[in-house]
Amino acid sequence: MTGSEPGQDTTEPSASSGLRLGLVQSRCTPDPEENLQRALEGVREAAAGGAHVVCLQELFQYPYFCQREDPAFFDWAEPIPGPASRRLSGLARDLGVVLVAPLFERRAPGLYHNSALILDAGGRSSGLYRKMHIPDDPGYYEKFYFTPGDLGFQAHATRQGSIGVLICWDQWFPEAARATALGGAQILLYPSAIGWFWDDSPRERREQLDAWETVQRSHAIANGVFVAAVNRVGEEGAIGFWGRSFVCDPWGRVLARASDDRDQVLVVECRLPEVEATRRIWPFLRDRRIESYDGLLSRWGSKPDSPDL
Amino acid sequence: MTGSEPGQDTTEPSASSGLRLGLVQSRCTPDPEENLQRALEGVREAAAGGAHVVCLQELFQYPYFCQREDPAFFDWAEPIPGPASRRLSGLARDLGVVLVAPLFERRAPGLYHNSALILDAGGRSSGLYRKMHIPDDPGYYEKFYFTPGDLGFQAHATRQGSIGVLICWDQWFPEAARATALGGAQILLYPSAIGWFWDDSPRERREQLDAWETVQRSHAIANGVFVAAVNRVGEEGAIGFWGRSFVCDPWGRVLARASDDRDQVLVVECRLPEVEATRRIWPFLRDRRIESYDGLLSRWGSKPDSPDL
Repeated sequence: MTGSEPGQDTTEPSASSGLRLGLVQSRCTPDPEENLQRALEGVREAAAGGAHVVCLQELFQYPYFCQREDPAFFDWAEPIPGPASRRLSGLARDLGVVLVAPLFERRAPGLYHNSALILDAGGRSSGLYRKMHIPDDPGYYEKFYFTPGDLGFQAHATRQGSIGVLICWDQWFPEAARATALGGAQILLYPSAIGWFWDDSPRERREQLDAWETVQRSHAIANGVFVAAVNRVGEEGAIGFWGRSFVCDPWGRVLARASDDRDQVLVVECRLPEVEATRRIWPFLRDRRIESYDGLLSRWGSKPDSPDL
Repeated sequence: MTGSEPGQDTTEPSASSGLRLGLVQSRCTPDPEENLQRALEGVREAAAGGAHVVCLQELFQYPYFCQREDPAFFDWAEPIPGPASRRLSGLARDLGVVLVAPLFERRAPGLYHNSALILDAGGRSSGLYRKMHIPDDPGYYEKFYFTPGDLGFQAHATRQGSIGVLICWDQWFPEAARATALGGAQILLYPSAIGWFWDDSPRERREQLDAWETVQRSHAIANGVFVAAVNRVGEEGAIGFWGRSFVCDPWGRVLARASDDRDQVLVVECRLPEVEATRRIWPFLRDRRIESYDGLLSRWGSKPDSPDL
């Protein structure tokens, strides 16, 4: 084969092709400053391991306070920019890494979001994501704390590629992954805080974990993108956060997976040209029936909502 | 716990709760009449095994003729109603089963669809589905044969429950599963014809099969529905169809899985109350951000299409 044949230019220049992604999985204590210090240390460790992009876990500065509803926890929220975002920005600049930093955002008095700041390698903001899908289940009382995001689904251009950020509960919604991929994201990052309850049986634990990983791997497959989740680990109150941060490629193949019981920093090579190579083999974007997807904008069914009693 | 406590009525009366689903996986020969006879025999076998709903595989009457483009194959298409649909309807009536019967539909001279007829247990039509997403890859030249469907995504009310039918390539599109589930489907059926090429390595085969199953299991999880695929098996030309028909529950747990190399009839109990029970635990339908999903109706991105050269 010569250099001019089709197929020869599917591999982009190596400088832009290999994105080394760092995931910082850790346990959290009740002390936000201690958690922030540990996270900064994790970012340094990932960078030392060659990471170009580092992603921290959801609400990494805090114990998972959403296990109960207490307005005092709003004291922990910070404006953006604010003290934490400035320290994180400084670190991104010093290390020359892209940093995805989840923050408990104080937007106005009485208005708070579960957010993530995307810091480019120079330390400047490449964008902000505000968690769009807010859960509320026993032990995960997030609707009490977080106003649903109003920034929609975006891809953020960085020096290392186009990055989509979604947060935890978003991972169960194919719409979020698709909309972000259509915005141009080559990789979807899911900072998370998900775990088991102590009375879940071993079988229930295995099945929950499998469903969680399966649905995220399917976003990689359906959209031809890399997907990574960064999940907290460790016991907090009634929840045992299950860690198992992972990265998968556009085929849904898991490239690396962290433990379910300890702090861990993963650095994983994501070959971005595989995005287009995979989409050429699985050309789903070619065949979407966009003129027939109106039903996706409905809450339920297509019948009028006036009950015929 | 007494009968009046919450949680007691999550189980519907047993008469309506257990849907026994039959899947008929088989190889096909070059002779349509022989294939039809084998399919009718498979439906009888499934019914004898207690199936209430039986699903046949995509284009079950034919060898997979889409491996090459030849207008002579349009001779095989039939109107609906037509000879094949009448025989299938008669069998559904005689056996008292709901029958999902894929057909090569001749809608008008020069206008053909890859369709599936949903026959209720009395033999009458409960609806027609026309494959919405049409593939076209080397060896799967379907865009030559089939006009994309114009009936959209629907749930079909039958005596045995609300059934969504999608066909093969549709299985890679989360939009199709979601729209059909929002129409009220409790179970999604995917008649299929997918296989390996002979030069695919064992590892490639394993990974393709895994991606195929993963993306369909994710539809079950994301939508809280049962999902089943019915795939052909056997060698035809350059393709080895991989069978592996399966059924999974709303947790994405595989309840049964057929072999990859032989004819097989599966009959699997689907406990329909698990649809609501699972959605109560994973309330994704509650939290969809329908006001923010406009991007799903776009081909790509949100930028204007006028190039700024």
